[in-house]
Amino acid sequence: MARTVGVVGGGQLARMMLPPAVALGVELRVLAETEGSSAGIAPHVVGDYTDVETVLAFAREVDVVTFDHEHVPQPVLERLVAEGVAVHPGPHALQFAQDKLRMRERLGELGVPMPDWARVEDQEQLQAFLDDHGGRGVVKTPRGGYDGKGVRVVSSASEAADWFDRGALLVEELVSFQRELAQLVARRPSGEIAAWPVVETVQLNGVCAEVFAPASPSLAASAADEVARTIADGLDVTGVLAVELFEAEDGRLLVNELAMRPHNSGHWSIEGSETSQFEQHLRAVLDLPLGSTMARSPHTVMINVLGGPADGDLDGRYPAALAASRDAKLHLYGKSPRPGRKIGHVTAWGDDLDDVVYRARAVSAHFE
Amino acid sequence: MARTVGVVGGGQLARMMLPPAVALGVELRVLAETEGSSAGIAPHVVGDYTDVETVLAFAREVDVVTFDHEHVPQPVLERLVAEGVAVHPGPHALQFAQDKLRMRERLGELGVPMPDWARVEDQEQLQAFLDDHGGRGVVKTPRGGYDGKGVRVVSSASEAADWFDRGALLVEELVSFQRELAQLVARRPSGEIAAWPVVETVQLNGVCAEVFAPASPSLAASAADEVARTIADGLDVTGVLAVELFEAEDGRLLVNELAMRPHNSGHWSIEGSETSQFEQHLRAVLDLPLGSTMARSPHTVMINVLGGPADGDLDGRYPAALAASRDAKLHLYGKSPRPGRKIGHVTAWGDDLDDVVYRARAVSAHFE
Repeated sequence: MARTVGVVGGGQLARMMLPPAVALGVELRVLAETEGSSAGIAPHVVGDYTDVETVLAFAREVDVVTFDHEHVPQPVLERLVAEGVAVHPGPHALQFAQDKLRMRERLGELGVPMPDWARVEDQEQLQAFLDDHGGRGVVKTPRGGYDGKGVRVVSSASEAADWFDRGALLVEELVSFQRELAQLVARRPSGEIAAWPVVETVQLNGVCAEVFAPASPSLAASAADEVARTIADGLDVTGVLAVELFEAEDGRLLVNELAMRPHNSGHWSIEGSETSQFEQHLRAVLDLPLGSTMARSPHTVMINVLGGPADGDLDGRYPAALAASRDAKLHLYGKSPRPGRKIGHVTAWGDDLDDVVYRARAVSAHFE
Repeated sequence: MARTVGVVGGGQLARMMLPPAVALGVELRVLAETEGSSAGIAPHVVGDYTDVETVLAFAREVDVVTFDHEHVPQPVLERLVAEGVAVHPGPHALQFAQDKLRMRERLGELGVPMPDWARVEDQEQLQAFLDDHGGRGVVKTPRGGYDGKGVRVVSSASEAADWFDRGALLVEELVSFQRELAQLVARRPSGEIAAWPVVETVQLNGVCAEVFAPASPSLAASAADEVARTIADGLDVTGVLAVELFEAEDGRLLVNELAMRPHNSGHWSIEGSETSQFEQHLRAVLDLPLGSTMARSPHTVMINVLGGPADGDLDGRYPAALAASRDAKLHLYGKSPRPGRKIGHVTAWGDDLDDVVYRARAVSAHFE
């Protein structure tokens, strides 16, 4: 049986695959960008994931290749497949996570609800879209954006003028939303899908700050599961798929972004679900039976530790943070504090939402 | 802050410290007996733990030294302490886990309830003890016994004749017990103690086979917490202390064995407690605030995978075992199947004990 999983990318998502790999008896190997990466605690090699020979050499030592990020170029991915490497998710799925214009086109074919959008080649086309949508819109570079990068809210086409050099842009309706949701599912190559409860995500400056699992129920939230399953099947995603959604003021549930890997909005599942997103991702890419995605508590709250203490003294705050709540869990990613950088997260759970939030914030407050 | 923990011994206990080390941002290093050991997935060196220079060189690279087993010789431990290494538990505590005669003497001083016992130098003394205790007794070699090794139930002194070459033996009353319990606590160098719920353990041929957490309540069980705290304080144990107990037919709660490390009877805590014994051990030896030891479910059951499938085809059984219960967890230790060898365990949890047992056995049955 295939039991060695190779992860391209040495970030915290690869790092957090290590604990469930230990339990499952799965061997994990990481292709890291640099020495000292977050996932460098696992057996790893350092190399350039855009270099086909480097990735191929790494892939030959493992049974399945998967990813910490979506940035491996298509030609590299396609070469792996041509050489018979099991790649999950595969290049045909990843293209939709790598290119937001392709994603919008494909989701349109699948009939998935989305914000109004258009492909715009120049300022004139962009301005026309803005004029049709109350004078404002969200402009996105099709490639390379994440955590608020490559995204601008504009009220004039000129505000995106510098981006047209790189080619066509995506423009989307600026959705007035009640809240943002995230629906995670995992899908095996053989087709089995498991969905976690839909969660509410709170963003701060384009970066996920807090996650509430499950989201308080609403008509829109109850549709999220079906939307994510449609996308996972339609795009042939293998592994974890995260679907970021808007619950619009007018009640529409609209797909915002996709990620084809474990996702920040799923970190709550480590303690909060019977099977964490990291364990499930390993099971899925190995085409093993998926685990239960039931919540273990009525409420689980995850708070990101962004940047760390202003004085950089992470270690000094550590004991007090642990003492602040004996039943919350602090996760650190082995990264140096730097303003805005995700260096860890805190999870708390229980029956009473206010108490759960209080306990999680009591810990995270030590790192602000 | 001290953040690198060195574990002497490369068995499954060291292995299972790795997942919480990842989450806590604690660096783990292992001194393993051989290449390919269970904990060899963590950064490790291979060396002889009875060689003082080997252990000292290992210790110099870490902030705290702790253990996967209790077999490091006292002179080695004492040298570490003399060189200023933080050793938890320390040699003064470990001596009582290494020598069962010393343990009985010391527990007697602490007034802890025990089976009747005696130190016997020869067959004559042993026979006198047997004659006073209904003609039967349990003879133990003071050192080196575990999992039923070094223990014999005898009805005549001649049955232990071969063991007297090695020196004095321990003989104990053969306790008629209703059940066996285990009480685990963790203690920090600064004195804080946290106790898990007492559990019931079921042994098969002297080896732990199943654990039920918590044990169904009884007058004796409710006293276990106090007994374990008395021992932890009295022996100055740091890290996890496991106290194996008999609940005798006559209602007495009697201390059977001690272990000063994470223990098989605590594996349930990985999923079943808010803080697992492995996380707590790391927190304790680093003198960090201890985590909550509350149970996360009304019932958690742990079943050891002993030996593995008779045909040795562990991998072939793996998918079916995972499919047998989507909400049980299979832990494998990276060991080859061999009759009687602990190669993994299964944990299930929930509200209904019968259902929990059923689900755990549905998984473990694939490896019998």
